[in-house]
Amino acid sequence: MHDPFAEPTDTRQAILGAAFRALCEHGYADLTISRIGEEFDKSPSLVYHHYDGKDELLVDLLEFLLDGFEASTSAGGFDLTARERLDAYLAATTEPGSVDDEHAPDARFLSVIVELRAQAASDDAYREHFDRSDRVFESFLERSVREAAADLDAEGSAGVSNGDEGGRRDEPSSIAPVEVASTLQTLATGGMLRWATTADRDWADDTRRGARRYLETMLPRVDTEA
Amino acid sequence: MHDPFAEPTDTRQAILGAAFRALCEHGYADLTISRIGEEFDKSPSLVYHHYDGKDELLVDLLEFLLDGFEASTSAGGFDLTARERLDAYLAATTEPGSVDDEHAPDARFLSVIVELRAQAASDDAYREHFDRSDRVFESFLERSVREAAADLDAEGSAGVSNGDEGGRRDEPSSIAPVEVASTLQTLATGGMLRWATTADRDWADDTRRGARRYLETMLPRVDTEA
Repeated sequence: MHDPFAEPTDTRQAILGAAFRALCEHGYADLTISRIGEEFDKSPSLVYHHYDGKDELLVDLLEFLLDGFEASTSAGGFDLTARERLDAYLAATTEPGSVDDEHAPDARFLSVIVELRAQAASDDAYREHFDRSDRVFESFLERSVREAAADLDAEGSAGVSNGDEGGRRDEPSSIAPVEVASTLQTLATGGMLRWATTADRDWADDTRRGARRYLETMLPRVDTEA
Repeated sequence: MHDPFAEPTDTRQAILGAAFRALCEHGYADLTISRIGEEFDKSPSLVYHHYDGKDELLVDLLEFLLDGFEASTSAGGFDLTARERLDAYLAATTEPGSVDDEHAPDARFLSVIVELRAQAASDDAYREHFDRSDRVFESFLERSVREAAADLDAEGSAGVSNGDEGGRRDEPSSIAPVEVASTLQTLATGGMLRWATTADRDWADDTRRGARRYLETMLPRVDTEA
């Protein structure tokens, strides 16, 4: 995973970078402002000056990372096709570390995200963040689903074979992109939680096969006008 | 949700019942052995006599609840058809409280389970439990998927209409039940985490539609011999 804090441009980013490193090293439960201070190359008292406590700092860290994802995806100009982006998104959560993308979490960070997300069960600031986070990711997925379905249309009318599933010709195109996006986001969220909280890995191959088959079956039926 | 501790038969069950009530009332982070003692109608010191700490007690609580689910499902004799069991399982995690079943979690308990599951990111005893938990639930789902697919076969050969999806006649039956079971378990796990950690609920309807369509599309293609 690319370090989003390699070159901090201000004090906030320098603090968030220290928090990011301390979080990946100690995990949520054992993280303290003092340990964040140890990762910080200026006076630890600056951390207290900017944030009232560990959770306020961590929510700001989550917001910063999400802003980065949102900015990079809303601009478009992707290197990958829409279908490749969907595959990479699912792989990132059922096989972390396998995806060579600057935004893809490694296994350690995925575990940390799960610990932070669990805070939202009892803390409104985290809950607000994860509401926004799910909206941002689902919107990215919805655009990708619509575009991947449109790509199938284009291939179909150009006479290019789509493999076994046979393109869009036989099926009514009646599935709303948001239905597929929401289902993928729920699968990805479940993959993250299972990955971070189990040692067995048999389920990951089965889920990956299931998710791929789901995409291949549903994409040709997606309504690109919806 | 049915109270599995309504009639404790021994001290362990009485303690676990107190922990269950205290957990639903205070959540994981604010739970203490002393608060468990307050829910207990005998001497709180008995709790310390049985358990070294809150986490040891909570893992035992999780094991007890899972044992109950495993015993009741391995015996068979279900009131619901296999397809109804699959629908109820998914509904329990994307619409908690909607399912009238003694094992279905209510929204509060779902939230608590997510908090406990997140402990598995950094605690091996929780991790071992959730490894076993995923195995038990996935095995229940795998048997239900195989049985639901076989029921479709039976309906097909009896000339009963299966609705839009058209039964198993046109598709090769090549999907392993474990693939569908794992995908459903990952969807259910993601549904739980999203439910417990967001306030928006738009995603839940979309995911429910997506999961239903997934089942309706894949069940006719499941290999019941696999």
